Amino acid sequence: MGNIYSSLPVQFEKEIFEELVRAENVRIERIISKGHLSPERGWYDQNENEWVIVLEGSGSVLFEDGVEVTLKKGDYLNIPSHAKHKVTWTDPKNITVWLAIFYS
Amino acid sequence: MGNIYSSLPVQFEKEIFEELVRAENVRIERIISKGHLSPERGWYDQNENEWVIVLEGSGSVLFEDGVEVTLKKGDYLNIPSHAKHKVTWTDPKNITVWLAIFYS
Repeated sequence: MGNIYSSLPVQFEKEIFEELVRAENVRIERIISKGHLSPERGWYDQNENEWVIVLEGSGSVLFEDGVEVTLKKGDYLNIPSHAKHKVTWTDPKNITVWLAIFYS
Repeated sequence: MGNIYSSLPVQFEKEIFEELVRAENVRIERIISKGHLSPERGWYDQNENEWVIVLEGSGSVLFEDGVEVTLKKGDYLNIPSHAKHKVTWTDPKNITVWLAIFYS
């Protein structure tokens, strides 16, 4: 058993990606952000679908078509494979805990 | 976008299972309990693996080998396929929100 809120860092330079499950068709990751966002250029263009939920904190995801959504505690979003997106904002004052399920 | 804490019922007789994602190799479900437990006889014996996290409330899972774990907010557990188990307790006073990822 683990706890999704365990070992939360206080200071960290880069986003922290932690794999919780890896199977043939699914990966489950915990992602910890604090003011981090995607690199300025380029988009995430993933082969897998991603279902993502914010468990703590807040973050914004921009899609290539211009739609931007801000996720707060408990908000979840399904991102189909190859739906280009990037993280444009995360709360700079508080830790944001994302749980992401990548599946094919 | 949805929110995992939305439309939480106040009174309900049976556990509430809500499918959030269904794909070929993965299902994501929200399960809402309040004092519910598995039927007295028998075990869950699933063809799929299940990764489950408690997002709110508390619940206990008993495995056939006698190991019993109580999950509180943020606790997660991976249940391999065919690991026989049952829910022996959920908080009778507060709603328990489980997020379960079933994968093959």
